[in-house]
Amino acid sequence: MFKKILIANRGEIALRVIRTCREMGIKTVAVYSTADKDSLHVKFADEAVCIGRPAGADSYLNIAHIMAAAEITNADGIHPGYGFLAENARFAEICGEHNIKFIGPTPDQIRSMGDKITAKETMIRAGVPVVPGGEGLLESLEEAKAMAKDIGYPIILKATAGGGGKGMRVVFKEEDLEHNYNTAKVEAGAAFKNDGIYMEKFVEEPRHIEIQIAGDRYGKVCHLSERDCSIQRRHQKLVEESPSPFMTEELRQRMGDAAIKAASAIGYESVGTIEFLVDKHRNFYFMEMNTRIQVEHCVTEEVTNFDLIKEQIKIAMGEPISGKNYEPQMHAIECRINAEDPYNDFRPSPGRITTLHQPGGHGIRIDSHVYAGYVIPPYYDSMIAKIIAVARTREEAINTMSRALSEYVIEGVKTTIPFHQQLMRNEDFRAGNFNTKFLEGFKMV
Amino acid sequence: MFKKILIANRGEIALRVIRTCREMGIKTVAVYSTADKDSLHVKFADEAVCIGRPAGADSYLNIAHIMAAAEITNADGIHPGYGFLAENARFAEICGEHNIKFIGPTPDQIRSMGDKITAKETMIRAGVPVVPGGEGLLESLEEAKAMAKDIGYPIILKATAGGGGKGMRVVFKEEDLEHNYNTAKVEAGAAFKNDGIYMEKFVEEPRHIEIQIAGDRYGKVCHLSERDCSIQRRHQKLVEESPSPFMTEELRQRMGDAAIKAASAIGYESVGTIEFLVDKHRNFYFMEMNTRIQVEHCVTEEVTNFDLIKEQIKIAMGEPISGKNYEPQMHAIECRINAEDPYNDFRPSPGRITTLHQPGGHGIRIDSHVYAGYVIPPYYDSMIAKIIAVARTREEAINTMSRALSEYVIEGVKTTIPFHQQLMRNEDFRAGNFNTKFLEGFKMV
Repeated sequence: MFKKILIANRGEIALRVIRTCREMGIKTVAVYSTADKDSLHVKFADEAVCIGRPAGADSYLNIAHIMAAAEITNADGIHPGYGFLAENARFAEICGEHNIKFIGPTPDQIRSMGDKITAKETMIRAGVPVVPGGEGLLESLEEAKAMAKDIGYPIILKATAGGGGKGMRVVFKEEDLEHNYNTAKVEAGAAFKNDGIYMEKFVEEPRHIEIQIAGDRYGKVCHLSERDCSIQRRHQKLVEESPSPFMTEELRQRMGDAAIKAASAIGYESVGTIEFLVDKHRNFYFMEMNTRIQVEHCVTEEVTNFDLIKEQIKIAMGEPISGKNYEPQMHAIECRINAEDPYNDFRPSPGRITTLHQPGGHGIRIDSHVYAGYVIPPYYDSMIAKIIAVARTREEAINTMSRALSEYVIEGVKTTIPFHQQLMRNEDFRAGNFNTKFLEGFKMV
Repeated sequence: MFKKILIANRGEIALRVIRTCREMGIKTVAVYSTADKDSLHVKFADEAVCIGRPAGADSYLNIAHIMAAAEITNADGIHPGYGFLAENARFAEICGEHNIKFIGPTPDQIRSMGDKITAKETMIRAGVPVVPGGEGLLESLEEAKAMAKDIGYPIILKATAGGGGKGMRVVFKEEDLEHNYNTAKVEAGAAFKNDGIYMEKFVEEPRHIEIQIAGDRYGKVCHLSERDCSIQRRHQKLVEESPSPFMTEELRQRMGDAAIKAASAIGYESVGTIEFLVDKHRNFYFMEMNTRIQVEHCVTEEVTNFDLIKEQIKIAMGEPISGKNYEPQMHAIECRINAEDPYNDFRPSPGRITTLHQPGGHGIRIDSHVYAGYVIPPYYDSMIAKIIAVARTREEAINTMSRALSEYVIEGVKTTIPFHQQLMRNEDFRAGNFNTKFLEGFKMV
C-alpha cells in the first residue's frame, strides 16, 4: 500500500488524484510552479513543493526537480496525471531507478505505444484493425490501382511531405483514380518540392470512439466500454460521452475485443485507452493507445461506478483486477469548460475569476481546480473545469447538462459555456448525428 | 403535461424542483418573501412573485397570496416542496378548486395520514405493525400485568399528561412491574397532578428507518428501498443514508411489503415515505407517513438513479408507474449542512456567507441555494446545503464524504461541517453501530 504519492501535475487532474488518495488514506505531495502557488491542488495536498518557474521545462517537465521533491518528501509513488510526463518512458524508468513506483504502465509499455509505426505494427500482429494502406510511397499509377483494389474504395491520397490539405485527394471509384493520382502528385510537388504520395483507406464520416481498458500485472485485461469524443475542434476534444449514440451491442463487443487484444499484446498493466476511428459503416480502425488516465475518464466513472484513479493506484500496488467487462449503466456527458472565447475563435482568456458559482443538484459532477479570486495563468492548458451530467438516457443527460450550464456563473474571463449551451440545443447533436467534422460546420449564434 | 409550475417553497427544495422542471421543459414560478429576494430559487426560476413579509404566515404559509401568484402567472401546477404547506390538506383542496394541480397526494390522502390516531387505526387494519399498546389508561396493576403479557416485555409505562421523562418507566420482566407501576403513578401524580399512565411496547435501541414509496392513480405502489435516518438530534435528522447498515435482504422485503400495504391502504398517489422504528431484534413499527417529498430523498435518488421530483411530477400528470421495486445499487450518505454552531449547542448562526467553496469530484452531489455573499435570513430553517456522497460501499461513501467535507469552505457563519467531520471519523458510526439515541452520547472535540 502506498504511504505517500507525489502528483507530478497541476490543475484539475492533480486535484482529482489528491481526492482519491485522501479517500484511500494515502498522503499526497503536490508540486507546483511559481505560477500555481494559489492553486487548489497546492491547498488540498498534505505537502507541497515548489519545483520552479512557470515554463513547463522549468517545472512540470523538469524530471530532476520532480524527483528531488519526491526524495525530500519521501514519496513512494508518483502519479503523472495526463500530459506533461505522463507518457514519458524515461521518466517512468527514472522513478523505478529511485525505487519510487510510477503509477502507470512500465517504461517498455509506454515506449511500444509511443512510437506510431511500432504501435501500428504491433496492432496488425495482434489482429487489431488499423487504417489500411499508408505503408510506403506509390511508385506508379498501376501500383496505386492495385493497392486501391486491395484496400477498397474510398481511398485517400496524401502527400508524404504534406499538410494543410495540399496534395490530398479522396477517391470514391476506380475511374477517378488516374486523374486524382496525377493531380495529387503535381500539387504535392508544387507545394512541398516533393511529389511523393501514399494511399490510405478513407474513413467516411469518422467518429472518434475510444475504449477504456484496465489490465493488471497478472495478464488480465478488461474493458469498461466506450467514450464518444467526436466533438472536437482542431483535434481538441470538447465534449465526451458514454455510451456513444452510434454504438450497438455488437459493435461494442467487437471494439471491446479489439481493445483487449491491443492491450494484451503489450501485456499492459494500468488503466489506458485505445482510440479508434469508426466509419459510417461501423468499421473501426486503431488510431493510438493512450497509456495514461485521460481528461474524459469521468464519463466512464459515471456510467460504470468505478473510480478509475483508485483502480489505477490499486493496479500499481499489485492488486489483481476481476477481468470482467463493464457495460454503461447510465448515460454521461462531459463538457470541458475552457477559459477561451467561443465568439472569437476560442482564443485563450486567462486572468482573474471574479465571480464563480457552480451548478449542482441531481446528476451533476464538477471537477475543477478554480475558485472565486483565482487567477488563471497563461502558461498552461486553458481548461478550468469539467462538468459531467449523468442520467438514465442520453436525452435526459443533455437536458440535465443544459440546465446546469444555465446555472454556471464564471465572471472575469471568457469561457466555453456559451458554446456548450448552443451545442446542447443543436438538433443534430441531440439526434446523435455527428462525427469528427461536426464542429467545422458549427457556428456560434 | 404541465406548462408552468409554481413552487410554493424556498431554499434548496425550491431550487431542486426548479432544476427538474427545467430539465423537463416546464416553466417555473418562484414565490418569495422579502427576506428571500436574493435567493437562488428566485434567480433561477423563469418568473418570481413576491408574496409577502418574512414571517411564514405572511408569505410561505399564506395560501391567499400563493394562489394569487399562481393565478397571475397562469401556473397549472403547484409543487409544495416540504414543510410549509406540503401536508396541508386544505391547501391541496384549494389548488383543486382553482383548477391548479397540487403536485402531491389528494386532500383525503393527506388528511388520513395527518391525524395520528386515524393513521394508526388505518395501519392496524391494513396489517402494518404499529407499536403495541398505548390505547388507554391502565386501571389496575392486574390490567397492566395482562397487557404486558400480551404485548411482551420490555414495555414502557408513560404518564398520559407527561413529558420530560417524569412518570416514565421501562420494565424488562414481570417481577419488576408492580414496583414500577406504583412508582410511575406516584411520579406522574406529583409532577402533573394526574396519575393516569398507559403502556407501550418498549422499542429497544430504536433505529429510524423509512421506506420511500411511489404510487400512481391506477392503484400501483412500489418501494425504492430504505433510508436510515437514526442520526438525529432532538428529533431533527442530521445524516441519512441508503442502504441502512442494519438492513438485511429479509428485513427489506418485510418492511417494503409493509410500506406498500400502508400506502395502498389509502390509495396513495404520489411519492411518499413510511417512517418506521426498528428495534435491535429487527422488529419494526409504523411511526408515521410523510405525504410529501422529504429532505433526504437525494440518497434514494443516488442509489436507485431515479429523479424523485420527476417521478412525482409525472405521477401528478397521470402517468402510470412500473410498479417494480428498486434495490440500492450503491451506497449514499447525506449530511445536512446547517448554519448552526455545533460547538455551542447547535445554536443558529444566520448572517452573510463571505466565502464559499464547495467540494466536487467523483461521488459528490451538492444541493444548495446559497452562494458567496448570500445572507442567510434568521426566519427559516437553518439548512443551507445538503452534501451527498455516493460510492460502491458504505466505507467508501464515508471516506468520500470525509474528503469532501475537508474541502468545504464556508466563511462568515458557523456550520455543522465540523460535526459531520467528527461523525465520519467516529468508530461506532463507521461500524454502523448507532440508533436514534446515538447523538445523546456524542461529544464534539
